[in-house]
Amino acid sequence: MTEPEDLPDDLRERVSAIAEKSGFVPNIFRALGHRPAELRAFLDYHDALMEREEGLTKAERELVVVATSAANHCTYCIVAHGAILRIRSKDPQLADQVAANPWQVQLDVRGRAIVDLALALARSPELLGDADIARARAAGLTDDEIWDVGAITALFAASNRLAHLTALQPNAEFYLMGRIPR
Amino acid sequence: MTEPEDLPDDLRERVSAIAEKSGFVPNIFRALGHRPAELRAFLDYHDALMEREEGLTKAERELVVVATSAANHCTYCIVAHGAILRIRSKDPQLADQVAANPWQVQLDVRGRAIVDLALALARSPELLGDADIARARAAGLTDDEIWDVGAITALFAASNRLAHLTALQPNAEFYLMGRIPR
Amino acid sequence: MTEPEDLPDDLRERVSAIAEKSGFVPNIFRALGHRPAELRAFLDYHDALMEREEGLTKAERELVVVATSAANHCTYCIVAHGAILRIRSKDPQLADQVAANPWQVQLDVRGRAIVDLALALARSPELLGDADIARARAAGLTDDEIWDVGAITALFAASNRLAHLTALQPNAEFYLMGRIPR
Amino acid sequence: MTEPEDLPDDLRERVSAIAEKSGFVPNIFRALGHRPAELRAFLDYHDALMEREEGLTKAERELVVVATSAANHCTYCIVAHGAILRIRSKDPQLADQVAANPWQVQLDVRGRAIVDLALALARSPELLGDADIARARAAGLTDDEIWDVGAITALFAASNRLAHLTALQPNAEFYLMGRIPR
Amino acid sequence: MTEPEDLPDDLRERVSAIAEKSGFVPNIFRALGHRPAELRAFLDYHDALMEREEGLTKAERELVVVATSAANHCTYCIVAHGAILRIRSKDPQLADQVAANPWQVQLDVRGRAIVDLALALARSPELLGDADIARARAAGLTDDEIWDVGAITALFAASNRLAHLTALQPNAEFYLMGRIPR
Amino acid sequence: MTEPEDLPDDLRERVSAIAEKSGFVPNIFRALGHRPAELRAFLDYHDALMEREEGLTKAERELVVVATSAANHCTYCIVAHGAILRIRSKDPQLADQVAANPWQVQLDVRGRAIVDLALALARSPELLGDADIARARAAGLTDDEIWDVGAITALFAASNRLAHLTALQPNAEFYLMGRIPR
Repeated sequence: MTEPEDLPDDLRERVSAIAEKSGFVPNIFRALGHRPAELRAFLDYHDALMEREEGLTKAERELVVVATSAANHCTYCIVAHGAILRIRSKDPQLADQVAANPWQVQLDVRGRAIVDLALALARSPELLGDADIARARAAGLTDDEIWDVGAITALFAASNRLAHLTALQPNAEFYLMGRIPR
Repeated sequence: MTEPEDLPDDLRERVSAIAEKSGFVPNIFRALGHRPAELRAFLDYHDALMEREEGLTKAERELVVVATSAANHCTYCIVAHGAILRIRSKDPQLADQVAANPWQVQLDVRGRAIVDLALALARSPELLGDADIARARAAGLTDDEIWDVGAITALFAASNRLAHLTALQPNAEFYLMGRIPR
Repeated sequence: MTEPEDLPDDLRERVSAIAEKSGFVPNIFRALGHRPAELRAFLDYHDALMEREEGLTKAERELVVVATSAANHCTYCIVAHGAILRIRSKDPQLADQVAANPWQVQLDVRGRAIVDLALALARSPELLGDADIARARAAGLTDDEIWDVGAITALFAASNRLAHLTALQPNAEFYLMGRIPR
Repeated sequence: MTEPEDLPDDLRERVSAIAEKSGFVPNIFRALGHRPAELRAFLDYHDALMEREEGLTKAERELVVVATSAANHCTYCIVAHGAILRIRSKDPQLADQVAANPWQVQLDVRGRAIVDLALALARSPELLGDADIARARAAGLTDDEIWDVGAITALFAASNRLAHLTALQPNAEFYLMGRIPR
Repeated sequence: MTEPEDLPDDLRERVSAIAEKSGFVPNIFRALGHRPAELRAFLDYHDALMEREEGLTKAERELVVVATSAANHCTYCIVAHGAILRIRSKDPQLADQVAANPWQVQLDVRGRAIVDLALALARSPELLGDADIARARAAGLTDDEIWDVGAITALFAASNRLAHLTALQPNAEFYLMGRIPR
Repeated sequence: MTEPEDLPDDLRERVSAIAEKSGFVPNIFRALGHRPAELRAFLDYHDALMEREEGLTKAERELVVVATSAANHCTYCIVAHGAILRIRSKDPQLADQVAANPWQVQLDVRGRAIVDLALALARSPELLGDADIARARAAGLTDDEIWDVGAITALFAASNRLAHLTALQPNAEFYLMGRIPR
């Protein structure tokens, strides 16, 4: 595990900014830090998709992350992004429900379409086809939003596997974040 | 599909350099070009892992890509990286054999350990554990090489899904590259 | 949904006693109450296994419940018994970790043997055989404890399915119970 | 294995009554007898569901048992309840056909709806949702009958696993019962 | 369905000989008879493997057929060859036990090795490799016997699918054959 | 491996005729030659289905073979019949696309119906039912063509497994055949 102070300058600054905002250094940065070029690209990819202003809302992006991480049984991503989903959705129960059963969690039509597309791509990507895209469009998703869903699912297919590879444990702080609505 | 001339300067240059070397613009760049920030991060991540000098050989990196893309049934990645594997391994048959059945393709002990770890992480990442890592080490892989295998598998878990999302077709050139040993 | 006051006397008393202890009426009783004979048998079976003094500890019994309910993606049982596991194990993180990935959650040898046996029986019971029992014994489980694991897994195979059948939602209280160690 | 004479009085009487009617002691009672409280609850649950007068017919209840036990590959339950299905349906071939392939056995619309719902809940309960319930209703099942199908499937999810846990063998008598229509 | 009298001479004679011996025309011949060249080749292949004198015993050959047909849930083959297995093994219960759960039916070491190899090849042939062959040899199977197991499994992979394609129903006679030891 | 000169006269002649036409002896004949009666029946079955004049075109027959062999991950059959598909379809890319992902390869309505039916029967034959046949008919396939698809799928379910059993390697010639349109 690499501590922030051992990172190259640009990465130390980025991770420090996140740590300042969260109050702690998320363990994923410790796990990836020994390969700065990979961590840099990962952060860039993450920010391009998760901080994007157009398309899906911030809460919807986290919904995709929690749903696909649940389908992949990735403990770090479920717990860490479950916390962020609680905060962004202002719903203290949704993340646990999505994590428990993304296939049947009760969502509105738009939420269901987002999660259905994400789950299809997450676990049996070879079966994904025109019918899935057509269903997403029929539920009102634009092609830009469909790309967001697909690309976030793809990024976390990678992210989940990095966490599995390192048996990454969530920071203790994540378990409690956003559970008590302020 | 985005043509290179419609990309931001830095990306146009990178893609042009690749096109010059290959003789054509691989379709993946056309598919990702409408989101330059994502394409840039993807390219950076790809280069950090696939152009790395230490750890796995270049041919072994492509072996991971073809094996996991085969397990994910990703047509673009199988055909495009199959071509690169033929060239880097100087073996005109290996890629088709890996693509047909990565679980049982005949490889030496090191190759088998690389592919077994990659396949375990590719399709049932929730089951990956200490036993898989121990088997890889027992076959002689260093922790640095194990990271290479895992991280390439993770990146192509993403890459495969982007190709599935866009029903991406391989360029005609890939089908023939490296089939006739020079 | 059947409220406690609409239950036959004996069941109303049993459910009221539970409600008094918990501070609320767990929704499972509301879901099963329209069939008193079935609820009575379910409660008897539950108490015979979950309140038993010999064999597995109370925390270990809940570990079996959360692990198998996670494998079955049963939202009600994961959230409700996750709360009880937090309280009985005095560990505020264990339940979320088990729920996220029961196959790879870090446990001691005894805990791992309990969960492995439970998971084998939960999802592919047709493959369970002498080898599974032998592994459980080798990890130190007695035949009485092995029965506990198997019988609790069996009971919650039923319980999970009743919750799935009714799309049962966890009471809001469960989400927070046991998260802050006292 | 616990013989009836070693059971507590109430259970000895219940099992004896069954044995008198059948001509032999079904082995399931021998397998569960060492835990009288569990056997008592199991019998109560079984009788509440399988002896109920309203809702599904007796033959339909056994159809659910044989179909889900077949999906779970539970030898004891297939052979024992196959015998009862032969008797209750007065059809000497139906049980073997359901046991061989419950997904495609030829049934009338009502039978097919019953078996489809049972199979969906038996093997992939996490996917069961409104669509399954809607299909059952569209085939004419009442909500009371849907509960019967679901609850019997749930009970035998437990029962099958107890038989798997004990590698329970069917009594020789079951193999021949009901094969020759009288 | 093609009746024997509508078959070409050579096939009519072969099928008549079988019918005379069995007392009825097995429905598989009716199902395949409209394509005489295919039926002829099928019969030749069947006889080459099932009537062979060396290698596996006749009962062992039927054990392979029932086990793999059970794994493929082929009603016709389970019922028809279950009857033949009862007769050839002189065991009235074995066929139903194999049909219910081929993975865990109690067999001696040789029988278990035969069935394990057959099941491995039947359902996940892409995973079959040196380890499976080594296990079969370690249990004492000769290479000639291993071929018998594999080739019979292969032939019935075809045969099962022809029965599935035609929703082929077993003749009524098969259900009762061999149930009462003479 | 059995060389043609060691085969009985009739088989030596048949194999020689094939070798003359292809320019080499396909390895499948070497693998099956030690059991002449089985090889003879296999060849007869193969010719009855693959050389048939009515029904599916020759290219469509090979499409079924490559699609189902891909679903079964059979290296020999994918490479050998991929070569024949290239030649018969006069399309140098189709075989690689089908081999990579038969579920989503882009085909016209008729081709898609053929491949969908073949894939359904190849991997989950127990689920094949009236709905699959109805879909094939709705796409315009005649019952004679549906039989062709099903029977070829069945034959190659056998053929694939014989290749898996022997870890059969494709002849080097197959890899290049038909890649460069003349």
